[in-house]
Amino acid sequence: MKLITFEHNGTVKAGFLDGDSVSICADGPGADTAVLERIKAGQNGPWDAKEVVSLSDVRLMAPIPTPRRDILCVGKNYHAHAAEFFNSGFDSSAKEEVPSSPVIFTKMMTSVVGPGEDVLGSLDPTGSVDYEGELGVIISKDARRVSKADAYDYVYGYVIINDVTSRELQKTHNQWVIGKGLDTFCPIGPWIATADEIDDVGAMELVTRINGEVRQKAVVKDLVFDIPTLIECITATGTLLAGDIIATGTPAGVGIGFNPTKYLNEGDRMQVSISGLGELENTIR
Amino acid sequence: MKLITFEHNGTVKAGFLDGDSVSICADGPGADTAVLERIKAGQNGPWDAKEVVSLSDVRLMAPIPTPRRDILCVGKNYHAHAAEFFNSGFDSSAKEEVPSSPVIFTKMMTSVVGPGEDVLGSLDPTGSVDYEGELGVIISKDARRVSKADAYDYVYGYVIINDVTSRELQKTHNQWVIGKGLDTFCPIGPWIATADEIDDVGAMELVTRINGEVRQKAVVKDLVFDIPTLIECITATGTLLAGDIIATGTPAGVGIGFNPTKYLNEGDRMQVSISGLGELENTIR
Repeated sequence: MKLITFEHNGTVKAGFLDGDSVSICADGPGADTAVLERIKAGQNGPWDAKEVVSLSDVRLMAPIPTPRRDILCVGKNYHAHAAEFFNSGFDSSAKEEVPSSPVIFTKMMTSVVGPGEDVLGSLDPTGSVDYEGELGVIISKDARRVSKADAYDYVYGYVIINDVTSRELQKTHNQWVIGKGLDTFCPIGPWIATADEIDDVGAMELVTRINGEVRQKAVVKDLVFDIPTLIECITATGTLLAGDIIATGTPAGVGIGFNPTKYLNEGDRMQVSISGLGELENTIR
Repeated sequence: MKLITFEHNGTVKAGFLDGDSVSICADGPGADTAVLERIKAGQNGPWDAKEVVSLSDVRLMAPIPTPRRDILCVGKNYHAHAAEFFNSGFDSSAKEEVPSSPVIFTKMMTSVVGPGEDVLGSLDPTGSVDYEGELGVIISKDARRVSKADAYDYVYGYVIINDVTSRELQKTHNQWVIGKGLDTFCPIGPWIATADEIDDVGAMELVTRINGEVRQKAVVKDLVFDIPTLIECITATGTLLAGDIIATGTPAGVGIGFNPTKYLNEGDRMQVSISGLGELENTIR
């Protein structure tokens, strides 16, 4: 099932997408949190539709517009990207090119926007806005001390995330909350695909295009630390909650991987696509 | 007003403390979030009491047991601590002894415990548990692009936080979410003092004792980046929400400041006190 939150006839509603058909399953108060509540309640069976409309009649939003906590993210989690970042001079916490342990940070939950929404590059006074196409994992139930072998039992589904970053702020503040947490710098969407929709997670291909030009292209099996390893690592000492979002890291091809760097400017169009998860498009303003 | 959340007769309730008198203002469903909801609603006038009981009849909890997002924290924000941390070899993201810009990271919201609750040092496989007594600031209303001059308008009150840390995990993972986010590693309490209770924030004195021995002693005016600067910095590009918690940093005297290091062991008693905010005591298990 492809879970969505959207605007229809001027109000926020939630439901699921099937081809070009949108099934409206929740409207009125609470519709903006209906997808999150469904995940928290452990529901992954059928969802009763009140009405079916066309995709062209709705405006998709982030499937979880207000996450229940900040977005967990993984740094330097593809080999070639770890190398390009290490060599860029922007890796303020680097002690090795490819990390020996997962590098976990957060993006502020207040930075989330949906597909089609503008990313306010003008908020970055340093003019160093960069894209990072990533696979996001949605946690299905509260999780502590989970082994790799059991980790996929805690995955509800998948979504595209663009971990937009101010490279200069990321470097200046050492820890990355400021450089990663600018308002609008976390596009998520267009839908959450439940885990049963994905036959082979490792084979999922991620492609990022900037103004139509392919910049990032990778498959998920090239992650340095795979999804079970990340879940085992985070829950070895901490707790994941149902509905939590983990952005698993970005592959090579970000703007600071080029010489000279290719930062984003007003009007630049970012498109991140992942097999089975659609395409997440946002423009810099 | 000193806002508290507590257990009384086996159920969670909320209200305020006056001397040894506990006014019960919320019970039943929602009492565990009543303090947070009061802050979110912008209420800071009188709170109607249903019943008044003695402090000895209740067990205080964290005043906000479930924060609405991860706890924002500031690293290396007292000069002498910045030096001791830089020189300890554990500062994985150091490029300078005293930072030129605020170092902002998060503690997982799932790590929060209340006064008197055990801190599970046994969760840290590296045996490098350390204390960090800190002043916590509670945000009063959603905040974007706030200037230093206006910053105190966005402060609802203050609370003690002990930013308990696994030093080896902090170093190993480069970014600090893992090393700072272990379950039970964020004691908060015993109460939130509303801003009107504090005449001079800079004069507030913080003292941390380990098994009765004074280890940290500082006044808030010695912060490298003061509270208005932190609020201006975070909201320059991001959003703070009503009820958000900012741990403003720890002064010199943490365990890694000693040679050899003084890590915490099972049974060690941590007491953090701040003028007007009471004392937060927790034991390592």
